[in-house]
Amino acid sequence: MQTLNVDLGDRSYPIFIGANILSNQQLLAPYIKGKQVMIVTNETVAPLYLEALKSGLKGFKVDEVILPDGEQYKNADSIDMIYSALLSKRHNRTTTLIALGGGVVGDMCGFAAATYQRGVEFIQVPTTLLSQVDSSVGGKTGINHPLGKNMIGAFHQPNVVLADTETLTTLPERELSAGIAEVIKYGLIRDPEFLSWIEADMPKLLACDQAALSKAIYDSCRNKAEIVALDEKESGCRALLNLGHTFGHAIEAHQGYGNWLHGEAVGAGMMMATLMSEKLGWLSSEEVGRVSQLIESAKLPVAGPADMSKEDFIHFMSLDKKNLDHRIRLVLLKGIGNAVITSDYPMSAFEDTLVAG
Amino acid sequence: MQTLNVDLGDRSYPIFIGANILSNQQLLAPYIKGKQVMIVTNETVAPLYLEALKSGLKGFKVDEVILPDGEQYKNADSIDMIYSALLSKRHNRTTTLIALGGGVVGDMCGFAAATYQRGVEFIQVPTTLLSQVDSSVGGKTGINHPLGKNMIGAFHQPNVVLADTETLTTLPERELSAGIAEVIKYGLIRDPEFLSWIEADMPKLLACDQAALSKAIYDSCRNKAEIVALDEKESGCRALLNLGHTFGHAIEAHQGYGNWLHGEAVGAGMMMATLMSEKLGWLSSEEVGRVSQLIESAKLPVAGPADMSKEDFIHFMSLDKKNLDHRIRLVLLKGIGNAVITSDYPMSAFEDTLVAG
Repeated sequence: MQTLNVDLGDRSYPIFIGANILSNQQLLAPYIKGKQVMIVTNETVAPLYLEALKSGLKGFKVDEVILPDGEQYKNADSIDMIYSALLSKRHNRTTTLIALGGGVVGDMCGFAAATYQRGVEFIQVPTTLLSQVDSSVGGKTGINHPLGKNMIGAFHQPNVVLADTETLTTLPERELSAGIAEVIKYGLIRDPEFLSWIEADMPKLLACDQAALSKAIYDSCRNKAEIVALDEKESGCRALLNLGHTFGHAIEAHQGYGNWLHGEAVGAGMMMATLMSEKLGWLSSEEVGRVSQLIESAKLPVAGPADMSKEDFIHFMSLDKKNLDHRIRLVLLKGIGNAVITSDYPMSAFEDTLVAG
Repeated sequence: MQTLNVDLGDRSYPIFIGANILSNQQLLAPYIKGKQVMIVTNETVAPLYLEALKSGLKGFKVDEVILPDGEQYKNADSIDMIYSALLSKRHNRTTTLIALGGGVVGDMCGFAAATYQRGVEFIQVPTTLLSQVDSSVGGKTGINHPLGKNMIGAFHQPNVVLADTETLTTLPERELSAGIAEVIKYGLIRDPEFLSWIEADMPKLLACDQAALSKAIYDSCRNKAEIVALDEKESGCRALLNLGHTFGHAIEAHQGYGNWLHGEAVGAGMMMATLMSEKLGWLSSEEVGRVSQLIESAKLPVAGPADMSKEDFIHFMSLDKKNLDHRIRLVLLKGIGNAVITSDYPMSAFEDTLVAG
């Protein structure tokens, strides 16, 4: 088992990474301060891991709420299911919420924890690669609004994160690839050495090799933690983490949330950012080829949906949170492993990229 | 004009208190960091003060959302009206929300600010005495849930508070009295000198004397700020502020939110806490008479509703946030101006008080 400490002053916490750690009472119990626990999970994950998690919670009063599975349920109705379960089971301000599932469960459980009785304790047990490498660090929680993705939320740090690599063996292949998109992202924006390792060990990752997955999760979380420690509330460099996401969110919104997986949209989005960087003279065609080959090797799309026009992209990008006063800031690459945040580019390079998408 | 600084480290802010300060651009503008402003108010307050407030916001892009008036609208639907207004008017993360109205508007606007795009800037312009002396300090925001009052919320500090005493001249008499209940509370829990002043100047307060109101607001906020500075997240002494509130919340819940005003329920609740303190031998009958006389002089009820039984009280108190593991902690008086938090009392004294209620 590996341990990564996320350093955020008095809100610091550890991430435990390894196989079969889900039911380890010694890892969980020290981080639960009261007697009450509410596990938030979904109908897909519950049959697989709920009993195992509960077996590590002996001596606590454990309740559970099982949400429907899918990004389309990441909304106020699901949050209300959590609130209602907490209130009807009389959970008080000393309760601890545990998110067991992927990013959607983690975001919703975290937001419920941030807002139930003005904030209660929270533990993450992510069961997808995407949530293990992404939601484990950063404290972002929230839900979608009919008028925009992730528009409602709060920053709320967990007490501890348990990333059990064994849970990835039951993950559909498409979701494993979607998680690898974020792993690739960390290499691309700031860690060329890690990127080379990902290129070499992609077959192991796709085959769910436990040691390879553990390293991928550790190095992804390490990179993210370093950025988040510099910029907890996302006022500066944290935006680097959005490489591929501004294009990607537009793809997800246009296709309807849940049809393209988040990681798939990020894969195509990172390719668009790479191509735009080439247009600006910041990447060579060899470097573009390397990125393209890596994204393809992860079984991810390297272009946006065929039915999505330039106008569609512009429409769906205009509501993006990352626009400051309606100007679209993008994360681009000035070389492999060196991302920058910029709104200083010719509009033609931007629009040509959308046509290509 | 008086200025009180609320000292909360890097979240410190000033409260400006005085007559006709609502439209003073010099007091507001320095606390608005972006260009976008969303005023959140209600259908009662908007016709009275919305234009005046807007006249002090020249040069900003000002939008507004007008909510229905009443505690029964302090719910997720109203919050969604705010989110929808922000998203449809394309407010970004640099926007500032301004609450113009009483406690309900302030709580909802603050909660929307705490959760829109994971937190945006927030200014309070309270227009009721209750909100000027209570919600101005402490950063509590939130909404009711069908299963419990104020169960959903967040801590979110404003950038500045403008308490314009002139707005109290349009306040219904019943609401003025309800606000005075909280003013009396500060005297009772920790400030005997202030309490004596309230007793002497009650006629001026009821007559909306601007200087008397200004002093009452200043001293109430000063007392609350001193407590909140010691205990921002309500883990200890901040509970002293709940004198009369545990009984009061039960009254509000039993009567249906909005039928008894919050301050009216707190008035009756403070009287119940006073009577229970007498049963424990902590107050003399003379002191009880003094409290009773003061509450009556503010035109507030000194007993709970006639149709509310002991069992009703117990039922509606059991979901209270202040119960730790289902044990009812109460704020009681060990003398005038000296409140204590305790769950160490004979049950008979508690139950006898409910019968009297």
